[in-house]
Amino acid sequence: MQSDADGRLTPGGGTDALFWGSLFRDLDREGSFLQLQIRQIIVSAIENGRLPLGARMPSSRDLAAVLKVSRNTIVIAYEQLIDQNFLIARERTGYFVAGLPKHIGAAAREPGGATRDDGRWTSRFAHRPSTYRNIVKPLDWQAHPYPFIFGQFDPGLFPTNDWRESARAALSVPEINNWARDLIDGDDPALIEQLQLQVLPRRGIRARSDEIMITIGAQHALYLIAKLFITPTTRIGVEEPGYPDARNIFGLLTPNVVPLRVDSGGLVLGDEFENCSLVHVTASHQCPTAVVMPLARRHALLQAAQSHGIILIEDDYDGELMPEEGELPPLMSLDRGSSVLYVGSLSKALAPGLRLGYVVAPAPVIRELRALRRLMLRHPPLNNQRVAALFIGLGHYRSHLARVGSVLLERARILDRLLPQHLPHCTWSRGAGSTHYWVSCRPGTDTVKLAELARAQGVVIEPGDVFSIDEGSARHCFRLGFSSIRTERIEAGVERLGKVITQTG
Amino acid sequence: MQSDADGRLTPGGGTDALFWGSLFRDLDREGSFLQLQIRQIIVSAIENGRLPLGARMPSSRDLAAVLKVSRNTIVIAYEQLIDQNFLIARERTGYFVAGLPKHIGAAAREPGGATRDDGRWTSRFAHRPSTYRNIVKPLDWQAHPYPFIFGQFDPGLFPTNDWRESARAALSVPEINNWARDLIDGDDPALIEQLQLQVLPRRGIRARSDEIMITIGAQHALYLIAKLFITPTTRIGVEEPGYPDARNIFGLLTPNVVPLRVDSGGLVLGDEFENCSLVHVTASHQCPTAVVMPLARRHALLQAAQSHGIILIEDDYDGELMPEEGELPPLMSLDRGSSVLYVGSLSKALAPGLRLGYVVAPAPVIRELRALRRLMLRHPPLNNQRVAALFIGLGHYRSHLARVGSVLLERARILDRLLPQHLPHCTWSRGAGSTHYWVSCRPGTDTVKLAELARAQGVVIEPGDVFSIDEGSARHCFRLGFSSIRTERIEAGVERLGKVITQTG
Repeated sequence: MQSDADGRLTPGGGTDALFWGSLFRDLDREGSFLQLQIRQIIVSAIENGRLPLGARMPSSRDLAAVLKVSRNTIVIAYEQLIDQNFLIARERTGYFVAGLPKHIGAAAREPGGATRDDGRWTSRFAHRPSTYRNIVKPLDWQAHPYPFIFGQFDPGLFPTNDWRESARAALSVPEINNWARDLIDGDDPALIEQLQLQVLPRRGIRARSDEIMITIGAQHALYLIAKLFITPTTRIGVEEPGYPDARNIFGLLTPNVVPLRVDSGGLVLGDEFENCSLVHVTASHQCPTAVVMPLARRHALLQAAQSHGIILIEDDYDGELMPEEGELPPLMSLDRGSSVLYVGSLSKALAPGLRLGYVVAPAPVIRELRALRRLMLRHPPLNNQRVAALFIGLGHYRSHLARVGSVLLERARILDRLLPQHLPHCTWSRGAGSTHYWVSCRPGTDTVKLAELARAQGVVIEPGDVFSIDEGSARHCFRLGFSSIRTERIEAGVERLGKVITQTG
Repeated sequence: MQSDADGRLTPGGGTDALFWGSLFRDLDREGSFLQLQIRQIIVSAIENGRLPLGARMPSSRDLAAVLKVSRNTIVIAYEQLIDQNFLIARERTGYFVAGLPKHIGAAAREPGGATRDDGRWTSRFAHRPSTYRNIVKPLDWQAHPYPFIFGQFDPGLFPTNDWRESARAALSVPEINNWARDLIDGDDPALIEQLQLQVLPRRGIRARSDEIMITIGAQHALYLIAKLFITPTTRIGVEEPGYPDARNIFGLLTPNVVPLRVDSGGLVLGDEFENCSLVHVTASHQCPTAVVMPLARRHALLQAAQSHGIILIEDDYDGELMPEEGELPPLMSLDRGSSVLYVGSLSKALAPGLRLGYVVAPAPVIRELRALRRLMLRHPPLNNQRVAALFIGLGHYRSHLARVGSVLLERARILDRLLPQHLPHCTWSRGAGSTHYWVSCRPGTDTVKLAELARAQGVVIEPGDVFSIDEGSARHCFRLGFSSIRTERIEAGVERLGKVITQTG
């Protein structure tokens, strides 16, 4: 750009088109909301100084020509930016960047100052959660053609239009007034009501409104329960192998995390179990072995819990995704002794990014959990609670689950057929209703290495070692999920996986 | 309703209109989304059994007549319910309630079973957070004409159209694919970028992306920092009087919460301060006294923190709401010794119900905070992060703050003028940029009682006792906020408040 006699930046021929073209380099002409993209780019350029105070903008006609968009798009964008005081229009002269209000003081913290003295901070930490062993899913799993991972988002199954309808309804003025408030320790009563009416009955659970609390995903529920009940001397039992996040959460609070044996019927009862005061249990589909606890053991477990005063934390993490013959009611629906705290999730059925879970527990427990949650973060965002309440209330949740269930069941049928064919030297388990298989390779197989080799072939699986406190014991196993892989890709994926296993073994 | 020869429920004259009228009793004809309301009511009635399997629905014409809505509204609602399998249409016969899939098993937990044996649970809790002393705001404060409360939602200031624009943009398919994912310990990079570009510079803070983390409101940031740094032997200093939620959070983790004196320049330095390893500080506007820490003390505080290895948790809770002459840069922007962890909030400027806050800290600290947050709840909902990123990126945040700032400043000017007039026996403080006053009544005044009397006159204030560890010391003080009261109501509200104070004193 050049300057005119007043020192203003003016359009100056060839270089100008270059400047504007480069400014709008990332514009996605195929994308939606073109006008919004243009405004965002101009706002950013003003904020970061690429477009300084007084800079002259191209005419709407010129910018439209450079960007190859309709002139009207630019006109609307400019009008909005003028309303917002980012631009000013001068009659017969054009559009100019307006002055922004000054920021506070001249002081400005320099970024990155403390990175070098890492050790100074390390010595101050009460915990080092970054060193815990966790499930590792490649963040770019969506870029792989055959993602056999568990519990992630499948864009093909998201109820886009129905969610949009609910989200838009939550943007009416009365709805905004509902969700914009600080409810301190409360939740959206409409969502609690829908859980009572439509969600919990699917699992055989009836609950009063003071027996339910919403959480930032099921994991948050586990954290709150742990914080409420665990002292450093508490013995808490976890399934071995089991859910590593639960193990890590409990480990933050007590050194007495006790591994409890799992067999083909899930958690095994016995002295070790009876000596715990709390136990985390995944009866519906044991995590990670996917086995279903038989009804008789469920009753025995509840009986033992009641006799020994053990609190059972039932993690019904994918309870309702895929209705399948042979499923059994969760522990809480069978419990007559009030031994069970129930943890469920809406994130898995909808979208993990939404982070919506819940706890069902006796009212005195919910009262303390609410007080604790209030200290920690008050409540899960209320706008999402309201959208979810509308989504369920409009019947979308039920029809969505019906659709997801039939797609997942079809995938399971395909895998049931293909696994014996392509993984002849492996064994596997998958209980009724579970959306993953737990696959055991030949002893000695290192599935961490296997997962790497598979990934090079576009296949994502989850190595089993992390599920076990004893790292070695599940190293030859892996989790094979099918809630995120497109149905038509399963066959090619399993075939490739089979080849990698054969070559490795 | 009556049954026909096939046992089906049929319309049966007069009682029918009564039944349908009663079913739709709560229909809000003035409300938006009439068609959605009708669908929600029908879905609920099917789920709770008021409309049993096979029940015959009125014709669209009849229902439209009963509800006094357009027939087309009913036609669209019925079509959607047929698509969702809640209703079926039989040719020439009408619409009928379709069969819902069976719920799991027959077992059903009875609600309310454990309420009576409260004591059984009480003995198991590691903490009793419900017994902590907290700020109490009447939940129905919006129903009072003169709500002088702090930090709550003002429907008149919410940027409805701009928020809607951003929220709708986040419902495009590519955006859904962005936010629906589980990012494990990550945040939306677009929101981090907007904090760097537009939000933090307003406070004189520059930060790299690995020095920022999003939280479920500022309070969640305090909780995470506390959990990362505090062991039972940690001495953590809090301002006295100070923010009760911070005090309660720290008290969950250590018995050594040390009250530090506050004067008209905020937190006072000295031996007590120097013996702490962490200190929570509200330098911009001390909570609750609203005084501003002078620049010289800020530098002295930073110097002392650096010399003694004290970590300062700077809670900049309403830093940017109301730009006013005399404001000073936050500690973090002055800090050359990396002693400060900075906590900020977007909830106050937008809507508390959204729960969006953030931490700025050295990268090694953010790394551990992310690992801890991952254990606790993974990440704040990503759809809200994306909407906020769009809102800020489109320039709405800046123009919203400009508007809010000028409205709040006007309210402060009015109160500056009215308080001496109507509260002649009180004194008060309000530092530059603070959106509340800290009012001291005559010694001996009980502001808990005063608040009750005021509420009976429609005036809401916040009693001061809860801000102090020593309950008695601030009992004659109260907080008078003006971010939620309508400007034109201030005069009448202060007048009423003045009368109540005069009558009480």
